[in-house]
Amino acid sequence: MILTVTPNPALDVTYRFPELHLGATNRVAGADRRAGGKGVNVARVLHALGHPVTATAPLAGPTGAAIRADLDRSGIRHACVDAAEGDSRRTVTAIETGTGRATCLNESGPVLSEDALGLLCDRVEELIPAARALVLSGSLPRGAPADTYLRLVRIGRAAGRPVLLDTEGEPLLAALPAGPDLVKPNADELARSTGCADPAEGARLLLERGARAAAVSLGAAGLLLRTRAGAWRARPHRTLTGNPTGAGDALAAAFARAAARGQPWHEALAEAVALAAAAVARPLAGDVCPGTAAEFAPRVEITPDAC
Amino acid sequence: MILTVTPNPALDVTYRFPELHLGATNRVAGADRRAGGKGVNVARVLHALGHPVTATAPLAGPTGAAIRADLDRSGIRHACVDAAEGDSRRTVTAIETGTGRATCLNESGPVLSEDALGLLCDRVEELIPAARALVLSGSLPRGAPADTYLRLVRIGRAAGRPVLLDTEGEPLLAALPAGPDLVKPNADELARSTGCADPAEGARLLLERGARAAAVSLGAAGLLLRTRAGAWRARPHRTLTGNPTGAGDALAAAFARAAARGQPWHEALAEAVALAAAAVARPLAGDVCPGTAAEFAPRVEITPDAC
Repeated sequence: MILTVTPNPALDVTYRFPELHLGATNRVAGADRRAGGKGVNVARVLHALGHPVTATAPLAGPTGAAIRADLDRSGIRHACVDAAEGDSRRTVTAIETGTGRATCLNESGPVLSEDALGLLCDRVEELIPAARALVLSGSLPRGAPADTYLRLVRIGRAAGRPVLLDTEGEPLLAALPAGPDLVKPNADELARSTGCADPAEGARLLLERGARAAAVSLGAAGLLLRTRAGAWRARPHRTLTGNPTGAGDALAAAFARAAARGQPWHEALAEAVALAAAAVARPLAGDVCPGTAAEFAPRVEITPDAC
Repeated sequence: MILTVTPNPALDVTYRFPELHLGATNRVAGADRRAGGKGVNVARVLHALGHPVTATAPLAGPTGAAIRADLDRSGIRHACVDAAEGDSRRTVTAIETGTGRATCLNESGPVLSEDALGLLCDRVEELIPAARALVLSGSLPRGAPADTYLRLVRIGRAAGRPVLLDTEGEPLLAALPAGPDLVKPNADELARSTGCADPAEGARLLLERGARAAAVSLGAAGLLLRTRAGAWRARPHRTLTGNPTGAGDALAAAFARAAARGQPWHEALAEAVALAAAAVARPLAGDVCPGTAAEFAPRVEITPDAC
């Protein structure tokens, strides 16, 4: 199984409106509520692909209970820990059904106590022997020290398991010395994290600082992969319009599956680009459209990149 | 005490942002969560004024539990009933702190079962002997028949208690034959309910159909009151900018207090306009600014209106 860790999970609430009017009262035409946060979305994609997965996250309060209940309902195996204080966060996404435009209101969530972080690390220690890969995803909750991912990467590396890290900024940079097997920022996150406007240069910098490989998503232009063995670009054969939320989590799921199978990262490129497109084709993060994945996978154009 | 009934209560969630960007991810800079719905707001204003009040409403699920917990925390006496099915609704209001612009996303809420409606009516029957006035406020939940307010007005009238009804459309029109002592639409609600663009004409129509009095709020222009004894206009001495949400509930609180004291409606006009201004001065519905009320009350201009 693949173990996903989401330090800052959420209940993702999606409201649909024909159109959203600022400064007015908008009556919700339809609503969905489900467990979210990047690692939970990765678990949802893997579960949909039939790959064994376990999701862990700290959960708190009634919103934490709602997240847990949705994981149960979705059939996603989970081993969450109780964070005694506060209430897990919600994100509210208002989707305008005419244009598909999505406006997100993201709560910051509760402070993670040292005790709750300890419980989360213990849970990962406990589950890592049974895992074939470890996926660490998303922002850190308030109160979590910047070296939280460093600590979690070390647990995976010490157990000899491939570790994928999908975060940005200080938590990403602080974790690099532990040697994560793949880091996966998108171009904007990479630029914000490294100060490099050029993705190829930014990826190189991440490897210099300790990452063993970096996959940089470039939105509709596909993906740039840099490993110690070389560099590649992977491009979808056509551009898809839709909801890009969750595309990065689908990419992470594809790479995690490759890691669990022992494949080198570049062999996962076609599936990664295809799954990202399959996520764009679906309005909710964590969902992928199998038809789109099947259409895109054999047509992804992969070229070696100058080093 | 004054008894307020809110058939469609809500957990009102307020998010603050420097500015709201459509089609983007907006990080919540501050959040409040509290019990709401129009009758709950009326109870909150009365409680703040030191007037004994009891709020009742059907509550369901974890959001219902959060509403109940907030009523406890706020010290508002309540006697809510358990609606077994579903989860009480939430409203999400995004306030831009720069301009004060408020964008509301309102869930429709769960279906009210016949059983839950029966429990609510029984609760009102049980509490009405101890009440000096009955306030019925807001939209009806899905599943509640259009004559729900007719039924509740009858309970109040049969007990000899003054009944204030603040709703619009079919639920308002259907309740008029029971003779509510005061109906309190704003000008837009009145126009939508009666088809009359002129508030004076609309108010006259409501009295012809059975209402004993009608107070029509005209926003910054104040208030029009029509009773069987005459008609009045009440104007604030100056215009206040702020959040108009909750101004109508503050008006209802002022009239309910007058009713509980046995005063005729027109003697409540100055306090009603002043409390509405005091609500506009505060960002959250149900809050009133005592300083603003004290400034406005002695300066409200009251003139008899042509009949």
